[in-house]
Amino acid sequence: KHCLQLKMAKNTNIRISLPAVCFVWQIAMIILFGVFIRYDEESDTHWIEHRRKKNISTNLENDFYYRYPSFQDVHVMIFVGFGFLMTFLKRYSFGGVGFNFLIAAFGIQWALLMQGWFHHLDEHDWKIKIGVENLINADFCVASCLIAYGACLGKVSPVQLMVLTLFGVTLFAVEEYIILELLHAKDAGGSMVIHTFGAYYGLTISWVLYRPLLSQSKHLQGSVYHSDVFAMIGTLFLWMYWPSFNSAIADHGDGQHRAVINTYLALASSVLTTFAISSISQNNGKLDMVHIQNATLAGGVAMGTASEFMITPYGSLIVGFCSGIVSTFGYLFLTPFMEKTLKIQDTCGIHNLHAMPGVIGGIVGAITAASASESVYGQEGLINTFDFKDAVANRTVNIQGGYQAAALFVAIAFGLVGGALVGGILKLPIWGDPADVNCFDDDVYWEVPEEDENFLSRHPNMNHATSIPDV
Amino acid sequence: KHCLQLKMAKNTNIRISLPAVCFVWQIAMIILFGVFIRYDEESDTHWIEHRRKKNISTNLENDFYYRYPSFQDVHVMIFVGFGFLMTFLKRYSFGGVGFNFLIAAFGIQWALLMQGWFHHLDEHDWKIKIGVENLINADFCVASCLIAYGACLGKVSPVQLMVLTLFGVTLFAVEEYIILELLHAKDAGGSMVIHTFGAYYGLTISWVLYRPLLSQSKHLQGSVYHSDVFAMIGTLFLWMYWPSFNSAIADHGDGQHRAVINTYLALASSVLTTFAISSISQNNGKLDMVHIQNATLAGGVAMGTASEFMITPYGSLIVGFCSGIVSTFGYLFLTPFMEKTLKIQDTCGIHNLHAMPGVIGGIVGAITAASASESVYGQEGLINTFDFKDAVANRTVNIQGGYQAAALFVAIAFGLVGGALVGGILKLPIWGDPADVNCFDDDVYWEVPEEDENFLSRHPNMNHATSIPDV
Amino acid sequence: KHCLQLKMAKNTNIRISLPAVCFVWQIAMIILFGVFIRYDEESDTHWIEHRRKKNISTNLENDFYYRYPSFQDVHVMIFVGFGFLMTFLKRYSFGGVGFNFLIAAFGIQWALLMQGWFHHLDEHDWKIKIGVENLINADFCVASCLIAYGACLGKVSPVQLMVLTLFGVTLFAVEEYIILELLHAKDAGGSMVIHTFGAYYGLTISWVLYRPLLSQSKHLQGSVYHSDVFAMIGTLFLWMYWPSFNSAIADHGDGQHRAVINTYLALASSVLTTFAISSISQNNGKLDMVHIQNATLAGGVAMGTASEFMITPYGSLIVGFCSGIVSTFGYLFLTPFMEKTLKIQDTCGIHNLHAMPGVIGGIVGAITAASASESVYGQEGLINTFDFKDAVANRTVNIQGGYQAAALFVAIAFGLVGGALVGGILKLPIWGDPADVNCFDDDVYWEVPEEDENFLSRHPNMNHATSIPDV
Repeated sequence: KHCLQLKMAKNTNIRISLPAVCFVWQIAMIILFGVFIRYDEESDTHWIEHRRKKNISTNLENDFYYRYPSFQDVHVMIFVGFGFLMTFLKRYSFGGVGFNFLIAAFGIQWALLMQGWFHHLDEHDWKIKIGVENLINADFCVASCLIAYGACLGKVSPVQLMVLTLFGVTLFAVEEYIILELLHAKDAGGSMVIHTFGAYYGLTISWVLYRPLLSQSKHLQGSVYHSDVFAMIGTLFLWMYWPSFNSAIADHGDGQHRAVINTYLALASSVLTTFAISSISQNNGKLDMVHIQNATLAGGVAMGTASEFMITPYGSLIVGFCSGIVSTFGYLFLTPFMEKTLKIQDTCGIHNLHAMPGVIGGIVGAITAASASESVYGQEGLINTFDFKDAVANRTVNIQGGYQAAALFVAIAFGLVGGALVGGILKLPIWGDPADVNCFDDDVYWEVPEEDENFLSRHPNMNHATSIPDV
Repeated sequence: KHCLQLKMAKNTNIRISLPAVCFVWQIAMIILFGVFIRYDEESDTHWIEHRRKKNISTNLENDFYYRYPSFQDVHVMIFVGFGFLMTFLKRYSFGGVGFNFLIAAFGIQWALLMQGWFHHLDEHDWKIKIGVENLINADFCVASCLIAYGACLGKVSPVQLMVLTLFGVTLFAVEEYIILELLHAKDAGGSMVIHTFGAYYGLTISWVLYRPLLSQSKHLQGSVYHSDVFAMIGTLFLWMYWPSFNSAIADHGDGQHRAVINTYLALASSVLTTFAISSISQNNGKLDMVHIQNATLAGGVAMGTASEFMITPYGSLIVGFCSGIVSTFGYLFLTPFMEKTLKIQDTCGIHNLHAMPGVIGGIVGAITAASASESVYGQEGLINTFDFKDAVANRTVNIQGGYQAAALFVAIAFGLVGGALVGGILKLPIWGDPADVNCFDDDVYWEVPEEDENFLSRHPNMNHATSIPDV
Repeated sequence: KHCLQLKMAKNTNIRISLPAVCFVWQIAMIILFGVFIRYDEESDTHWIEHRRKKNISTNLENDFYYRYPSFQDVHVMIFVGFGFLMTFLKRYSFGGVGFNFLIAAFGIQWALLMQGWFHHLDEHDWKIKIGVENLINADFCVASCLIAYGACLGKVSPVQLMVLTLFGVTLFAVEEYIILELLHAKDAGGSMVIHTFGAYYGLTISWVLYRPLLSQSKHLQGSVYHSDVFAMIGTLFLWMYWPSFNSAIADHGDGQHRAVINTYLALASSVLTTFAISSISQNNGKLDMVHIQNATLAGGVAMGTASEFMITPYGSLIVGFCSGIVSTFGYLFLTPFMEKTLKIQDTCGIHNLHAMPGVIGGIVGAITAASASESVYGQEGLINTFDFKDAVANRTVNIQGGYQAAALFVAIAFGLVGGALVGGILKLPIWGDPADVNCFDDDVYWEVPEEDENFLSRHPNMNHATSIPDV
């Protein structure tokens, strides 16, 4: 055990900084919630009066019943999906699932405030009124920070992650406001707003924090057999619930319904192309768990923007087909290239799973929007799907396509610029990040249980070393 | 590592065949979807006009809100439930959960087409219009192929599994059409259509592919401690969500409600009898994880046909009681008997979990249907439950019972004949299946991570072998 | 293997007793269900007539559609949440998840009867009519017994657990009747009824069953790396679905909606304070998995009573803030103190996760109720939230606060007295409990798979001991 501490050049003691950050930020949340956050009319006890006033015939029209099942699915994706996907490293499973838990729990609180100020601030009383849709949006917002965490996995301290999340949520809320409100772009599943932004944010941070000697911890950068199985829990819950992710805040009725079908098909399609490329790339056609764990999800990412559109079922299959191929090729060729040439160390390969499929999703969304027509959507359907009313009542689908493309650039720009700024802050030598030789090692931030020798000697069949004296 | 390859008599290189199959079949799916599959009126942007025309007062009447929560539960059963249940082998967890993922993702696409052609082909434009109910049915269809995979687990190549699934889905769609449309039998949870068919399909394939020297890989045919815990994830998600499985396509209102109650009770009951028989069968009353992982689910299988019927709560308990006993006895006596005498090697014991409880379910369904009465169901209730209208408006419950029994034979026949045919195809020496000595070994089709020696030598407390030189 | 049996002073053979208990109790359930349990009007085929009579416009008004998604989430908490949370011990994962499965499956049946007799007995025909709300309540009831199991984990036989559950469910039903019906207290998420009662019930049993020589099995009382990751599956599913737990039987509409928001916020807040206290308490600020696995859930427990009330979003954050701190301090100081001084051995630390946060929840509920006002709730809102009608139409909020406090004492009293009685029964030397040296060892009640030597010798890279002869 002593040998573990030998090469720890850096001070990774976070006994003051982590509790301080947690307490200060949580207390700030309480104060800001006290000032700003209230129940909306559907979660307030005045709902019964609201119902009568608005002539709503049944409690079922409460948005809760439209969106709660999708919310819970998204919630599982955030905490179990992202969390377990990051347990694949042989000795960083605690950090993968544990820090994911910490920053998501903080991020959703800060997101309720930031998104509330930008989107839901009541002009009369300056309060933010929250309901189930806000909870979903907060989960969405924090997803972008968890994507960014994927690039930094194993190389940063939990204090750095809290800073990354604080600024990430802030940037997200501004970027989202520009894309959804100012540009009036559509992005129900967040190909641009969540995935593209989150990935470039994380990659730029990882570039700023480049560690030339990271190979010193190379022995910890792989998986072991059962850590790969744990990661499949994350993969599958992300894969299964992605239709809920892309439909959670879509329009009631056909909007949610169609978003589910499109996402379900795109995901199925990318599984097959991922297996195909993974097999073709290896000796004897052996499959690589890294590809299966990640690239199978590319179809969900790439369907984020167009999920509500009439992209047609076979269109969804094509999107999944291409994004599965692109993503797997990314793991094969781009990740090593980026590490060697661009000096970007991307632990989870978020460039392949989120950045490229996110950009594909943005482009697909722009093209699908630009080619929408009344003959396909119906007159009312076209207006409903793109919300062509009020200020944008006269927008044509071509112009909408242009704004969709502009939104993609906004997302990339926010990721790159925001990542550079936040990366600079995280480079300060005060955050308790690990030395290169201690990266990817839970021992730095966690009390890791010792394997118990007494136990092993009582069960000689479990470790053959102890039975050697008998020979 | 070299010693691994020594006895590989067979060529398991799938570097050409697996990618070829994936690409060809996925491209075929895209083309066929392009020709045939469209959104139905509830997932199309014309929904708003459809609502107005049909005088539907609220978006909530969109079938999406009736069925989406159940769909997601079923989806979890297919990918996490079946997938993790098959991780119990000590060295085939990648194959268990990974190939399950591959064939389910392919199967649901092919099922949408096959089931669509048989059940939902629009006579005017020759298109298949899909909505959430089609997605559920596709998941159901693929479940039968995953059951069949359970019998072959560890002994076939992924290319063989793709073939098994292609034909399995095809056979399923025909069998389902005969049972539900021609015979007008009821089978909401698929005791007959899914479980009986899938189990006999897989068992017959396993019989055709009999491996006399399978004992050469006997050292890999068991579990290890943590692989049994992984398998419990599969067991529990199947167990918990089975009420959704049996109610997902049941009638709106009381139909879904009753199917949930009946399934919940049958499952609870079979847990107790499984524990009882497992304990009584072993020295000192020790429990066997194989029984707990599998036979506890028998109640859900056996309640598949009668779930919608007025079988009464205590009737459901009795069904679960009996099927838990039968299933556990199957693992104790039938599986070894079948392997020795009938030459059927059934890796997961699907005969005990799906075949026998499925047949029980079919029989229970026939008896319950035949004994239905207006005094119990009410006049309208009886008509609604059995859909006694149009062509079968004058059918009596006794005749219905007869048709239910006939449906059971159709399911068995399709399983046996289909399995024999497909087994013959899979016996061709072109599919890259493993040699007997390499069965149940992920090393054949997966890049399995090496345990890292550097890591172990840095953590001497984790492997005592390395500390022996110190002695 | 032989050495395992050496010190087994006690007879742990349950080959007669466990099957006997399972069979007798399951047959009793079947008989009692036959006499007493029927479908309610929403799950009966007469629903269509009921709808017409009551002028219910749509099937969606069937309570099934209000509550089924929440029910399934609660179901996952009971079986996967509690089950996997208890897999953290290095060699008791089978017992943790397996016995949890057994007693929950029995408990829900007995709970349907007990709760039915007390709450839902139809006065006309002396039948209990069940629907989805009864299923949720049965899950709730059994949760209290699973909490109690947490204190006894690894130290009792499955037969003792069946007895614990039989009496636990019985006591629960009486206590719940007194609290909800007689005192007319509100407790939607069961801070008092479920958590406080269950925890004190389990702690008192553990106190009666005190084992002075438990340190003989000390080598098995810890976790190993991957068992801690398994336990995080339990933690996260409990954490994510707790909003469903606290809202599952809340009022339709704003009641369920508000309960979700309050619980979501309290949980997020307690994650941050748990991480803070865990870090501050250890050398170098290292985090302790025991705290992260448990204390992060304290906010959900503490929000159980007030979840439906207008506690405000920032009030929820404060509740989570405090309960996370209290719970983590409990693990640091109270658990060792209780073991040494009070002779209470609490394996899972349920005093910290359920007892203290439950009491906090009861107190918060009493205060929040007493300070409710028409200006905040609205006139109708106040009546709806507290059900001030019929017999309690004239109750004031202050009096309600008093009754809430009284309810808390009832819960504690039932836990202490019930636990002492049942503990006395469980102390009888007939139940097959393990000797002190065999506690926390799955080998006593489970067929534990042997690590296979053949397998290891074929894969020399997997165990270095076997390669030593080469050196």
